[in-house]
Amino acid sequence: MTLIEQPGTLPDRDAEARVRADDRAHVFHSWSAQALIDPLPVAGGDGATFWDYAGNSYLDFSSQLVNLNLGHQHPDLVRAIQEQAGRLATIQPSMANDVRGDLARRIAEVAGDGFEKVFFTNGGADANENAVRMARLVTGRRKVLSMYRSYHGNTSTAITLTGDPRRWQNEPADGSVAHFFGPYPYRSAFHSSSQEQETQRALEHLEQTIVLEGASTIAAIIIETVVGTNGVLVPPPGYLAGVRELCDRFGIVYIADEVMVGFGRIGEWFAFQAFDVTPDLITFAKGVNSGYVPLGGVVISERIASHFDTLTFPGGLTYSGHPLACAAGVATFEVFERDGILERVRDLGTRVVEPRLREMAERHPSIGDVRGRGLFWAIELVKDRGTREQLVPFNASGKDAAPMAEIAAACKAEGVWPFTHFNRMHVAPPLVIAEDELVRGLNVIDRALTSADRHVR
Amino acid sequence: MTLIEQPGTLPDRDAEARVRADDRAHVFHSWSAQALIDPLPVAGGDGATFWDYAGNSYLDFSSQLVNLNLGHQHPDLVRAIQEQAGRLATIQPSMANDVRGDLARRIAEVAGDGFEKVFFTNGGADANENAVRMARLVTGRRKVLSMYRSYHGNTSTAITLTGDPRRWQNEPADGSVAHFFGPYPYRSAFHSSSQEQETQRALEHLEQTIVLEGASTIAAIIIETVVGTNGVLVPPPGYLAGVRELCDRFGIVYIADEVMVGFGRIGEWFAFQAFDVTPDLITFAKGVNSGYVPLGGVVISERIASHFDTLTFPGGLTYSGHPLACAAGVATFEVFERDGILERVRDLGTRVVEPRLREMAERHPSIGDVRGRGLFWAIELVKDRGTREQLVPFNASGKDAAPMAEIAAACKAEGVWPFTHFNRMHVAPPLVIAEDELVRGLNVIDRALTSADRHVR
Ligand SMILES: Cc1ncc(COP(=O)(O)O)c(C=O)c1O
Ligand SMILES: Cc1ncc(COP(=O)(O)O)c(C=O)c1O
Repeated sequence: MTLIEQPGTLPDRDAEARVRADDRAHVFHSWSAQALIDPLPVAGGDGATFWDYAGNSYLDFSSQLVNLNLGHQHPDLVRAIQEQAGRLATIQPSMANDVRGDLARRIAEVAGDGFEKVFFTNGGADANENAVRMARLVTGRRKVLSMYRSYHGNTSTAITLTGDPRRWQNEPADGSVAHFFGPYPYRSAFHSSSQEQETQRALEHLEQTIVLEGASTIAAIIIETVVGTNGVLVPPPGYLAGVRELCDRFGIVYIADEVMVGFGRIGEWFAFQAFDVTPDLITFAKGVNSGYVPLGGVVISERIASHFDTLTFPGGLTYSGHPLACAAGVATFEVFERDGILERVRDLGTRVVEPRLREMAERHPSIGDVRGRGLFWAIELVKDRGTREQLVPFNASGKDAAPMAEIAAACKAEGVWPFTHFNRMHVAPPLVIAEDELVRGLNVIDRALTSADRHVR
Repeated sequence: MTLIEQPGTLPDRDAEARVRADDRAHVFHSWSAQALIDPLPVAGGDGATFWDYAGNSYLDFSSQLVNLNLGHQHPDLVRAIQEQAGRLATIQPSMANDVRGDLARRIAEVAGDGFEKVFFTNGGADANENAVRMARLVTGRRKVLSMYRSYHGNTSTAITLTGDPRRWQNEPADGSVAHFFGPYPYRSAFHSSSQEQETQRALEHLEQTIVLEGASTIAAIIIETVVGTNGVLVPPPGYLAGVRELCDRFGIVYIADEVMVGFGRIGEWFAFQAFDVTPDLITFAKGVNSGYVPLGGVVISERIASHFDTLTFPGGLTYSGHPLACAAGVATFEVFERDGILERVRDLGTRVVEPRLREMAERHPSIGDVRGRGLFWAIELVKDRGTREQLVPFNASGKDAAPMAEIAAACKAEGVWPFTHFNRMHVAPPLVIAEDELVRGLNVIDRALTSADRHVR
């Protein structure tokens, strides 16, 4: 038995047909109209690349929903899973377990001062559900504020927190949520003309929202440290510190949703560490073990954890602290430390990605804005740089979204699997991508954008 | 590298101390007051047994939250995980994948006529959240009815559906849930004196609830086919068929929560198959792969699935259809079929467990009722058989629960890890338990109940 298979890209039409047939007949897919999709049968992956059964391979510029921070089939993670499977695949949450404790200790250590305990969940949605639960019980208040242009998961409270169209058909779910506008300098909701002004006005807006919703009713504010799917919105200087100050002033719990940006995406263990601020609760998933085994969780500040020293925490799940998932998490820490992943991400971000995207922005009239950090960037596409009219409308689908579909198709035709959302293309490859692969992918995106340029007025 | 470790029970006090220290400092546990617990450091497991670092081993009569249907470290499941980890640990939900499709096909097959598609989630809670989402969208109604004495998970909708004290501190979460009373012949809410009467009156009560809540507002009724943690309540003959008839009459979706009882617990693929009824949606988790990798899901009837052929299903999650989890699921099917697990469960249930428990009930004055099916039984303990006063009060804790704690301690002292809840002891060992182990465990419970007998008036 060979336990780590070698990459192979020979076409296998029989296998492809079998996989497609089972999929179309029996698999119900996320966020889709089931008869209108044609999922690609994927045969394998390695590092920053995956391949289908038809002999095509793709540079993965989406990291599979910005999940595979250590790429496809990282040998250290694979080995850790294989070994842990042979030792002890699982044990119930009420037991103590070596890898579960080991991973919790490592996460608390990198989260920094004031964080000691971790509550493990299965993914990002239930991490947010449990963070909100904690905030509600500690404060004795129910309401939670979250941002428009955000995603927090698909369970009832998480989808209500979500500030994008995925919420719409699920309302009303959690009755105690209100949305506010976050900073977005390129499309300011506050008519600002500078980053400083955006910070100041966005904080003023948040404070007004708190006052008008009733500070004494608000348990928590939840914010993606860098807004992910809804735009790679990097908070302008001072914004998160201002949120922290408002939370302190009004006795509100600050929850940082780090599901997409935690574990190295922007070159920090947790993204908030780049912004000189400390939340009360941190939610994570994805990058903690590159999703090789489902895992999420909440890092809990001592003030909140100690509330539950003698009072029962009324939440839990069968797979909390799953040993197999935790083993892949421990291996993730070892790889990050041994291979200097955080340093690498910062270096590639500032030395390769940022200058290249800024240079592309000068050449392509369709590029309205580029923004990001580390290996997490957005290219925002417009029909007109002056009016900033979007290349495709908000939440476009079908024919309205055709210009974006063209760009995506152009990337795929040249072997790059892109991440597109509304009028944006994101750059979010595995953090282990080789420099020449990164450059190759950026070249492909560069060429694909000539198709976007044709839509510019 | 030895990939499947051999059982070993030599004491290792250093390792124990290390595991306990990490756990106490860093792991935040489900449903607990963190400073009042002392989780057992578990070193390993094999089949129906697990062991600690102190040299004690335990026959697992709880299957780790009724999860490990195929027991600890089943070699076929371990190997399937190791192989899949080496092939392709994960891929995003929007791709087609061989094991994902393979498992979906197998699940749909055993679910029976009318079921073709499976939506995969991470566990039981989000399976129920997504089943409710489907029911709400298909019917255009919001309200969901669920039973008192039930558990459906810890996310907002799932915990609101829950009809036990774990809900109390989380209310109000989902505003569109109402609870009704299910059948419970031993403690009838309807003053019935026979199973037939209980069925008839429980259905009458459900119909009244539907009428008074407003049939046109009710999207779904969700029922644990056999109520699990809240009492191994086997539905009396005709009850579920009656629920089906009410659902049909009023256009309500019938969701069967099979998270705990699916995949063999009572000797059927799905428990509803023992009761001549077909739900519209089936939720599952746990037994589908013995929780070796987190997995749950919804089996969707064609009528409901087809609603989403051209309309977008507005739910999803990063790890949906996780290949590593699905590989363990496929292996589960192979083991069930090769080793005749369903037949074995029915045989052990009727030949070994049931007669023994009935015989114990005659000897122990503390036993008020025994009930169950397959390898899923409850022994309900009372202070007085005449009045049926519970051995400990509903939701007792601390000193009030001491008589139950004594029984549990007596079992552990003799090497059996029991499942106790309120005034009940459940018998829920792995389905692979050897017959002599099963008998040994029942002997231990038998002896432990002499301590319960002392509390009888
Ligand atoms: C910021 C953020 N929060 C929460 C989630 C939900 O995570 P999951 O899909 O694991 O439930 C996501 C998923 O993309 C996310 O990006
Ligand atoms: C009947 C039932 N439904 C749902 C759940 C929730 O499953 P999970 O803990 O995986 O969220 C459980 C868990 O015990 C259960 O027993």
